[in-house]
Amino acid sequence: MSIVHDIITADELSVATLNTLFDKASYFKNFLTSAVPVASYLYGKTAINMFFENSTRTRISFELAQKLLGMHSIDFNTSVSSLSKGESFEDTIHTINAMKFDVAIIRHSSFDKVRDASKLIDCPVVNAGAGTTSHPTQAMLDTFTLLEHFKTLHGKRIVIIGDVAHSRVAQSQMSMFPKFGAEVYICNPYPINRVTDKDIANCCGVITFDEAIKTADVLSLLRFQVERGAEFPEIPKYCITDDIMKLTKDTVVVIHPGPINQNMEISYEVAYSNRSLITTQVTNGVAIRMALIHTLLS
Amino acid sequence: MSIVHDIITADELSVATLNTLFDKASYFKNFLTSAVPVASYLYGKTAINMFFENSTRTRISFELAQKLLGMHSIDFNTSVSSLSKGESFEDTIHTINAMKFDVAIIRHSSFDKVRDASKLIDCPVVNAGAGTTSHPTQAMLDTFTLLEHFKTLHGKRIVIIGDVAHSRVAQSQMSMFPKFGAEVYICNPYPINRVTDKDIANCCGVITFDEAIKTADVLSLLRFQVERGAEFPEIPKYCITDDIMKLTKDTVVVIHPGPINQNMEISYEVAYSNRSLITTQVTNGVAIRMALIHTLLS
Amino acid sequence: MSIVHDIITADELSVATLNTLFDKASYFKNFLTSAVPVASYLYGKTAINMFFENSTRTRISFELAQKLLGMHSIDFNTSVSSLSKGESFEDTIHTINAMKFDVAIIRHSSFDKVRDASKLIDCPVVNAGAGTTSHPTQAMLDTFTLLEHFKTLHGKRIVIIGDVAHSRVAQSQMSMFPKFGAEVYICNPYPINRVTDKDIANCCGVITFDEAIKTADVLSLLRFQVERGAEFPEIPKYCITDDIMKLTKDTVVVIHPGPINQNMEISYEVAYSNRSLITTQVTNGVAIRMALIHTLLS
Repeated sequence: MSIVHDIITADELSVATLNTLFDKASYFKNFLTSAVPVASYLYGKTAINMFFENSTRTRISFELAQKLLGMHSIDFNTSVSSLSKGESFEDTIHTINAMKFDVAIIRHSSFDKVRDASKLIDCPVVNAGAGTTSHPTQAMLDTFTLLEHFKTLHGKRIVIIGDVAHSRVAQSQMSMFPKFGAEVYICNPYPINRVTDKDIANCCGVITFDEAIKTADVLSLLRFQVERGAEFPEIPKYCITDDIMKLTKDTVVVIHPGPINQNMEISYEVAYSNRSLITTQVTNGVAIRMALIHTLLS
Repeated sequence: MSIVHDIITADELSVATLNTLFDKASYFKNFLTSAVPVASYLYGKTAINMFFENSTRTRISFELAQKLLGMHSIDFNTSVSSLSKGESFEDTIHTINAMKFDVAIIRHSSFDKVRDASKLIDCPVVNAGAGTTSHPTQAMLDTFTLLEHFKTLHGKRIVIIGDVAHSRVAQSQMSMFPKFGAEVYICNPYPINRVTDKDIANCCGVITFDEAIKTADVLSLLRFQVERGAEFPEIPKYCITDDIMKLTKDTVVVIHPGPINQNMEISYEVAYSNRSLITTQVTNGVAIRMALIHTLLS
Repeated sequence: MSIVHDIITADELSVATLNTLFDKASYFKNFLTSAVPVASYLYGKTAINMFFENSTRTRISFELAQKLLGMHSIDFNTSVSSLSKGESFEDTIHTINAMKFDVAIIRHSSFDKVRDASKLIDCPVVNAGAGTTSHPTQAMLDTFTLLEHFKTLHGKRIVIIGDVAHSRVAQSQMSMFPKFGAEVYICNPYPINRVTDKDIANCCGVITFDEAIKTADVLSLLRFQVERGAEFPEIPKYCITDDIMKLTKDTVVVIHPGPINQNMEISYEVAYSNRSLITTQVTNGVAIRMALIHTLLS
């Protein structure tokens, strides 16, 4: 199987490579959801997880994926690291590289730091979320989840709703979904951060919230930066509630990368309804990361 | 072996179930205290440890128990989690549940949160300390430790000394010790938090510090909330010192869940004397948690 | 192989013991730098890592070494421990000891605490850096790295440059390097912390920066406490740059325990040049710790 050495953006992977990954993810998912432990395919291999931003699901998802494969998983733990002694990012990366890990997982608020690290590190590097630019494994698991549900994305209308311009998830989704034939639209109902022509280069266009609700096959919600929410009292108006769901196609599904803000982007009831794939995304995230790491190291 | 699905309070377990657990704990303890590694009985199974309150001994005890059984142990690490991004407790629990762990260990300042989590999580949930209400694995290891020492607790007088009304350890001990025939008395020598009738429903009565010292077979000390200690200059008077130990039965033993406040509840000399079972409790805690997890997952 | 029970200072180990350790480290290093996983020589054995001071490379190095040997590695994690509830250091150590780990790794700002812990703990204890007194595994990996490079240290002039009086690395190097025939000199070019006669008991003498640069076979740089650096504008003058390297022997090599302060002790260019062994030290650190732990537990 041909695959690039590092996984830094969603653009790099061909549909053929992705389909092979998805097949492997399905295989690993069987173990996750059964009582049979997965064989330790990568026993003795080592992973370093460097999360320079807080994370629950992505960090645990990678660690769990590694351990289920039998790998030795090491947490860099930025809060007690030498960075707090003034060590430069580059020196830290050189040090980690010298320890000869088999794979390095990096999340950072700066895309450039992730890219720089991938150049300094000899082993494969996986971007676990970089600035506002890209989050390729999220887009992979989203695509896998939708393919699992719909069998094909050809002709499906996926509407990404929220602050698209500042969302690394949206950026990676806009790169990934069209590869599988989906028609991607974007919708930012909030009176901030209007999208630019650059933001919509990969998608079919910008539509209103009302049109999104009525026409979408998939509502791909983004996390609203709740810390700025107080300025926008009209937000609940765009929250996906049971009432809003009555206006959608019967077959619509909702996805969200998490963590969700309850009653901001989505109500609790919808998030855990049978129209939501949110918890399935979490399960699939582990399987996708197992497949990805296994492929990179095989 | 019949056992409840979750371990939330000490009430739920029958004496027969507990005796089977204790036999298994004895078996696992042999490995802990010998040079022979335990077989990886649960290799490939996964555990998530969610400690929403600080902990040393309980957290490490569970992690060590899991690893000795060959499990993959994942630390939720609340300090860098999405809860700090405003995610709700319920959403966090749904996310964890979607990762398909085989067992979840939870400590929280609120008993209701632990109980709510156990309802949302499909796999077995073990309460690792909940509010002021219950700490069942502590009471199990205390009972195991006393049974190991005395062979039987029938007719033994166990006096729980301290702020019983606010101690989850005391609550679980009062539920557990009487099942094995012990006569449990309580004693709060401090001029705070007088016990109520509800607190003593499960025990034989309230006695004075002097009577406790003279008549007890077991002194079960509770951690004094040292942060409030400054208000109570008379505390050292109730500290179990070598001098106090001269007034006890020759066969008395002292237990304490830790962490101890030296010279508040107990002196260093007594804590590590041959009348103290405090370090044995710590060793047995690992064995009990191995037995419990092994039983829940077998 | 005869070896002391604990590794607390660099003094304790004979040259014969060290040479055996170095042979074993070479063996383990082969696995680190190849695609072949090391066999789990110590599968099922347990290690507790207690870092009471921040650390990246030493903490990760020990954890990686343990995991590569198949051990169960537990992080004490001081930031969420019971020490924050006021538990005494001694009680914490008693608790850890009761959990029957197979090896304990301790870093602490106080050498006395490390020594006290080693007395209270039954299993082997390894000092991972203690106060300003000693850091024996650093000196071991430094010696191993230099022997690997030079084959022998007999007659080699090693100059330790920096605040020798307050450096635990320097103290351990001054104990270790002479055992292998090196001529150790010290050089503190900064107008602070002049060395005393006691500091130079183990070395050949004190020399100037100019003489150090011209005559050294090895420049052993120490981390400058950058937080005090603002007071010393003349520091860059003693930074090892490409220009300074033009004044050295052609065969000189530079070592540094890390983390480095770029452009304080050394420039980025020199740190990653072919005259620097800094990243090799990091790789060798893992191999040395594998060899040491394997030896202590075999």
